[in-house]
Amino acid sequence: MAATTVKRMLASWQLAQRGQIRAFTASAASQKAHNVGILAMESYIPTRFVSQEQLEVADGVSKGKYTIGLGQKKMAFVDDREDINSICLTAVQRLLDNYGIDPKDVGRVEVGTESLVDKSKSTKTTLMKLFEDAGNHDIEGATVMNACYGGTAALFNSQAWVESSDWDGRYALFVAADIAVYEAGPARPTGGCGAVAVLVGPEAPMRLVPKARSTHSVDVYDFYKPSLSSEYPAVDGALSQVSYIKAVDDCYNALMEKVSRMNKRHTFQTVESAFNHLVFHSPYNKLVQQSFRRMLYNDARRFKQANIALPSHLAPLAKFVDLAAKDTYTNKDLEKALQAIPTTVYDRMVGPSIEFSQNIGNSYTAAVYSNLVCLVDNLGKELEGRRMGIFSYGSGAIATMFTVDGIAAPPGASFSLPRIQQTVNLKQRLAERKEVTPAEFVDALKLREKMYGKSGTPAGSITHVPEGAYYLKEVLGNHNRVYARK
Amino acid sequence: MAATTVKRMLASWQLAQRGQIRAFTASAASQKAHNVGILAMESYIPTRFVSQEQLEVADGVSKGKYTIGLGQKKMAFVDDREDINSICLTAVQRLLDNYGIDPKDVGRVEVGTESLVDKSKSTKTTLMKLFEDAGNHDIEGATVMNACYGGTAALFNSQAWVESSDWDGRYALFVAADIAVYEAGPARPTGGCGAVAVLVGPEAPMRLVPKARSTHSVDVYDFYKPSLSSEYPAVDGALSQVSYIKAVDDCYNALMEKVSRMNKRHTFQTVESAFNHLVFHSPYNKLVQQSFRRMLYNDARRFKQANIALPSHLAPLAKFVDLAAKDTYTNKDLEKALQAIPTTVYDRMVGPSIEFSQNIGNSYTAAVYSNLVCLVDNLGKELEGRRMGIFSYGSGAIATMFTVDGIAAPPGASFSLPRIQQTVNLKQRLAERKEVTPAEFVDALKLREKMYGKSGTPAGSITHVPEGAYYLKEVLGNHNRVYARK
Repeated sequence: MAATTVKRMLASWQLAQRGQIRAFTASAASQKAHNVGILAMESYIPTRFVSQEQLEVADGVSKGKYTIGLGQKKMAFVDDREDINSICLTAVQRLLDNYGIDPKDVGRVEVGTESLVDKSKSTKTTLMKLFEDAGNHDIEGATVMNACYGGTAALFNSQAWVESSDWDGRYALFVAADIAVYEAGPARPTGGCGAVAVLVGPEAPMRLVPKARSTHSVDVYDFYKPSLSSEYPAVDGALSQVSYIKAVDDCYNALMEKVSRMNKRHTFQTVESAFNHLVFHSPYNKLVQQSFRRMLYNDARRFKQANIALPSHLAPLAKFVDLAAKDTYTNKDLEKALQAIPTTVYDRMVGPSIEFSQNIGNSYTAAVYSNLVCLVDNLGKELEGRRMGIFSYGSGAIATMFTVDGIAAPPGASFSLPRIQQTVNLKQRLAERKEVTPAEFVDALKLREKMYGKSGTPAGSITHVPEGAYYLKEVLGNHNRVYARK
Repeated sequence: MAATTVKRMLASWQLAQRGQIRAFTASAASQKAHNVGILAMESYIPTRFVSQEQLEVADGVSKGKYTIGLGQKKMAFVDDREDINSICLTAVQRLLDNYGIDPKDVGRVEVGTESLVDKSKSTKTTLMKLFEDAGNHDIEGATVMNACYGGTAALFNSQAWVESSDWDGRYALFVAADIAVYEAGPARPTGGCGAVAVLVGPEAPMRLVPKARSTHSVDVYDFYKPSLSSEYPAVDGALSQVSYIKAVDDCYNALMEKVSRMNKRHTFQTVESAFNHLVFHSPYNKLVQQSFRRMLYNDARRFKQANIALPSHLAPLAKFVDLAAKDTYTNKDLEKALQAIPTTVYDRMVGPSIEFSQNIGNSYTAAVYSNLVCLVDNLGKELEGRRMGIFSYGSGAIATMFTVDGIAAPPGASFSLPRIQQTVNLKQRLAERKEVTPAEFVDALKLREKMYGKSGTPAGSITHVPEGAYYLKEVLGNHNRVYARK
């Protein structure tokens, strides 16, 4: 077979499939990715929120129950005009548009969610409409599900793909998104809604530190969704809290040990020496505060095990360090001693990541990535040279604590911490939202209940959908879901 | 801080967490995995089946409708005593037991399925009970969902993790499993049930060929599960068939192009030159036959595009090679011309992988891996030095065609093709099953319908559960699912 024939053959294919070929050609045969991590992030926030203070009044509960007891301020929500597919479409579209990403340059798309509208068709396939028009069908990835952990599974899968022998030089993209709604009752104020789209690739300004991560997975029914005909979860509140704290213990201690062994001198590490900032999954802010304190308590136990005297700020914990683990999870005296520790360190390490979730509520898989967006929004370039510890938890359960380094981008680089900061524009987006009454919030959830699993046209008004966002136009009689962009 | 103190500290942790530490220590700091792929496979087959011939009689359809029209022989099924969690537990337990895998040596577990019993708690977390007893909680991975594609997503994720900078030297394990059931009607005989557990690691006897894979993903409603209160899917049969064939076209042509470019001499490749064997996802065997013929048709088009004369066995396709693609998907004349091509090549390349699925039915995510198990069961050592093309399809849709090389294991290696062949022991396991009447099959599905989403004790007898397998003991009032091992 003549070489010219082959060239002609290739040329005709190239014409037909220009999209894939461009990216594949760019990949060369054996390129290897280095310094893989997060290149860019974008988020979607619903336009409406209800005030937790107003909810306290409407629900007739004691003042401070939601605002102090849960540590929450505002809760974002959507009615039946938006669903998991539409908020993912919006977040990914924004990421592509606002960072100028060519859809042909994406080789992997994954979705982390626990807001399913179908038990077989994955939201990832619905996102393909954003890539098909550019002629790009060669996109791996599916939907990953494990309560609030799906985004982290997707991040790790994305990173591994870029580092694998199969990487073809294109970007990996994932979106972590959820609509968290609870039936009327004490759990309802812990709802929320959010979507974060993340671009992953080499030479990243937020670099995943290899092997500096530790996972805790167990079989437990702390929070789950066994009701297949309702959007609402089943929650064992007490078990959920203990499961979360156990996961913090296990992930943190094992990670400190790994970090210590990776460090040739085996330097003893504490929360403050190992990290500059911490970012937590945030069902509600109070649990974030408790998790941070729990890490201080683990430090106190570790100091004791290492026969090192407790530093002065941890000294009040001395009498608790020998307790059996089981006697610590709901120990009121220990909790009081931890609460008495000045919040200076918390304010510095955790404070810059918490406002977003306090103002949108729990966004499940999106929560920890919303908090990371918040940290970058607050600190931007200041994160360069700093190390972040990130704790992601999904009920059922699996949790991972992992390590991300902020890196200064070289001159002319496409992606940098300042660029993410400018793009997410968080404070303005939060300020532009509209406050509605608790009654309007309850009505919106009623619309969702009515539409869940049904076909027809959603009753919610598209005036609540922001410009450029996607919304559910109709669910046809055959349950095909039709989306439109405003 | 004295070095002895640190050593003491480490020793105490090692005592407490021996499981994780052993594996981590074994990993060294910067080891790199080579020749990653499938090390071992095990499968679970229900003990009961119904004959498709008997079903034809019971359903009052024309003789041959299921056996020839669909190409199926027997259909495996389970009643309400088994669910997605129990069949995954059984398959993973068998893999660990029958290959002597220490649960502490597994660092990643993923589940590919579309048989959900919970919309938040992933089956992966239920599998943790097999690892927790060994003290191993440090296991990444979740559940991945995209119709029948979840297993392939899990395989790629497993491979990438082993090749990533975060790999700690332990095995990745995934299980692809589904219970395929349809409401009474024409689709019901296309059901089935199966689970395949797969161990992934370096120096594998079934090696994934880097970059020799191509994906086709689009947004389509061909097969989906919008009914959240029923186990049964919605199917657009005609669309599903065309979507599948389009995916074959796109994956195969793009892969041939990649392979041609990877080959410095750009040798023109055909089905027969590129692969020794082909393994397809198998909703029913007839579609496997059609897919293979479609690849021959694509070869004919590619010969034409390359200005190479058609080889004699493809000559009857000459008059179809210039058709617009849209005119080929349901073209009866083309189908007849393809059917007239002698099946010699099909019998050699595809034949050794089809009997398993013909005898258990469609097992969705497990199907293509069941077919791979079947190929190894039939050929074992003969696969050494041979190249397999594997086509995985999940509705919604995403499909990938990828390449696996059979490799001779070095002397003393733990994993080899002959070992997999001996372990899966497929013919005996299929022969040991019990045939039941169509009425008993229908009754079993009725039990499933009744139990779906409910709490209580399943009505099905555990006599149908094989020794050593897991089964659903009870669903508690709070919807916690309790499993036992027989």
